[in-house]
Amino acid sequence: MSNGPELYAIVPAGGAGTRLWPLSRAKNPKFLLDITGSGRTLLQQTADRLEPLTGKNGLKIVTGRAHRAAVHQQLPGVEILAEPSPRDSMAAIGLAAAILHRRHGDSMIGSFAADHVIKDDGAFHAAVREAIEVAKTGQIVTLGIDPLYPSTAYGYIRCGQGVPGAKTALQVLAFEEKPGPQTAAEYLRSGNYRWNAGMFVARTGVLLDALNREHPALATGLDEIAQAWDTGGRAEALAWAWTSLQKISIDHAIAEPAAARGAVSVVPVDMGWSDLGDFDSLAPHLEQLEGTSTGYIGDPRTIISLESENAIIVNGGTKTVTLLGIDGAVVVETPDALLVTTRQKAQDVKEIVDLLRGSGRNHLL
Amino acid sequence: MSNGPELYAIVPAGGAGTRLWPLSRAKNPKFLLDITGSGRTLLQQTADRLEPLTGKNGLKIVTGRAHRAAVHQQLPGVEILAEPSPRDSMAAIGLAAAILHRRHGDSMIGSFAADHVIKDDGAFHAAVREAIEVAKTGQIVTLGIDPLYPSTAYGYIRCGQGVPGAKTALQVLAFEEKPGPQTAAEYLRSGNYRWNAGMFVARTGVLLDALNREHPALATGLDEIAQAWDTGGRAEALAWAWTSLQKISIDHAIAEPAAARGAVSVVPVDMGWSDLGDFDSLAPHLEQLEGTSTGYIGDPRTIISLESENAIIVNGGTKTVTLLGIDGAVVVETPDALLVTTRQKAQDVKEIVDLLRGSGRNHLL
Repeated sequence: MSNGPELYAIVPAGGAGTRLWPLSRAKNPKFLLDITGSGRTLLQQTADRLEPLTGKNGLKIVTGRAHRAAVHQQLPGVEILAEPSPRDSMAAIGLAAAILHRRHGDSMIGSFAADHVIKDDGAFHAAVREAIEVAKTGQIVTLGIDPLYPSTAYGYIRCGQGVPGAKTALQVLAFEEKPGPQTAAEYLRSGNYRWNAGMFVARTGVLLDALNREHPALATGLDEIAQAWDTGGRAEALAWAWTSLQKISIDHAIAEPAAARGAVSVVPVDMGWSDLGDFDSLAPHLEQLEGTSTGYIGDPRTIISLESENAIIVNGGTKTVTLLGIDGAVVVETPDALLVTTRQKAQDVKEIVDLLRGSGRNHLL
Repeated sequence: MSNGPELYAIVPAGGAGTRLWPLSRAKNPKFLLDITGSGRTLLQQTADRLEPLTGKNGLKIVTGRAHRAAVHQQLPGVEILAEPSPRDSMAAIGLAAAILHRRHGDSMIGSFAADHVIKDDGAFHAAVREAIEVAKTGQIVTLGIDPLYPSTAYGYIRCGQGVPGAKTALQVLAFEEKPGPQTAAEYLRSGNYRWNAGMFVARTGVLLDALNREHPALATGLDEIAQAWDTGGRAEALAWAWTSLQKISIDHAIAEPAAARGAVSVVPVDMGWSDLGDFDSLAPHLEQLEGTSTGYIGDPRTIISLESENAIIVNGGTKTVTLLGIDGAVVVETPDALLVTTRQKAQDVKEIVDLLRGSGRNHLL
């Protein structure tokens, strides 16, 4: 192991957050927004949360070239690895791992989404520190969120027996895709499943070996780019190799096959996590208007909510926004677009985005 | 009778239309708005509808001084009788009646609201013409709308036997205040009730006699102002007498007592009438977005409605307004205020206006 920080954190920052339209846009995606009204963007919150583990120099943001300037502005001084085009999470994380491995030798890395929220930083830090301990033994270690309800929006981790010598870590038997409602209910009843929040901790050597075993061409391509990264040849290497890299998620590329051969562990954790996937999951993270159960973002003096239990109102301007008599309503006012729906329909906001795209209204996406 | 037009039409134009906030405002009330998206404001539609009966010179608009310029702009060349302050409908209509009586002798007048819609102009004209015939005999004649459902938002007219010699007119036994739901249902079942749309036809002499009988001080005050109206003394007479006039509606002042002594008749009519009292009653008068049951006002290219049956969307700007999954939703976007509610709650929009007023946000009223 190198003498670098306790952990290098790789934060892939991408994805438009379509179900949070019209707050989240292709040019101004979710991770760049202060979507919970906390005063810090999701990306900044992620960096704040990781810094005690990584120090300032241990944080690496992998993002598209289009977002490089915005990420730099939000996190000055943090290294940004800019992808020429999106090649899915294995290429993004694998590139960062390969670069760090070239620079520092075998190092501990973790991968964490740029646009999730975690309420209990202490629980997060404790879980990552246990994951680091287990990862030192050569395991790929994921964090497994204690499931709160039978969600059909998340993948699940099937857990086995305890990892010998670990405090709470369990063996991972399998990763399961997003289930139907009945299967989700069975998962919850069994007590053997955790939500997969897509967070991994591993040694670079272990991760790159696993990639080489499963997808050698991808591993070779990433290593070629990594070798050129800190030289004058970076642009040429990217131009040569990047677009030929296989597009695959890290789950499919490494995590699932590694789990099948007993090489993955999970640290169960209850830390107030949410992927803020849609307006329904945003609700518990918002402040409430005085005297109501309405969560809001914006200037509360411009928002009125009457007889509307558990609604959400986002006022992105100075207009007065009023809601009367719709429980669970979602009202999102932005300068160029208004969305009115319900928390129940929150997952279907994508339909509106699809319709806008289909009718050529790309300026609204 | 004079040799003037068939009918002088008096159109009191007042009332803020609070339940249509934020479309209707104190400074820009309902009657000044093209609230159905027809291309003509409600006041202009009212004038268009009356002109075949009155000619251009027979139309008289009674309105507050604050609205005189706007009314003049919408109806150039039409006489406006400007009230110094609101004194309810008896003073407004009585003043116009007294002025016309002074000018032309005993004349046929009708009073019609400035902010209702009527789909079937032919049925309206036929009903008014029958009302004129009955009014010539000395009756005060009202139009009675065939009730479509047991509304609790309208007053009712209790009808008696046919008027001898009339085509369809009936004697009026009484005017009933807005009923509760059960009473409204009984009214509908009995077949003896019509909605009171507040339209009257009578000879000026008959109306002023009735006023003199019930409220002699009010009659005298109005006649003093009328006498001065077309002279240099108008301002002085208004300043002297106007604010001491009794504030009372024409229903309470004349219609109810006259009905009690058998002096009121009603012409029943089915003419697609609505008082557009709230967004629910506005819905049937709107065009529908292609392929949906959503009524709209605004540029349809800026409005998207998905899975929302019988909704209403008003887009007063160029922003894209999107609605997903709320049946009967009401979404009204204006430059300084947004309203989101349902047609079921449409009568309660007043609560929001009350709250805005109570919190001093008068610029939004």
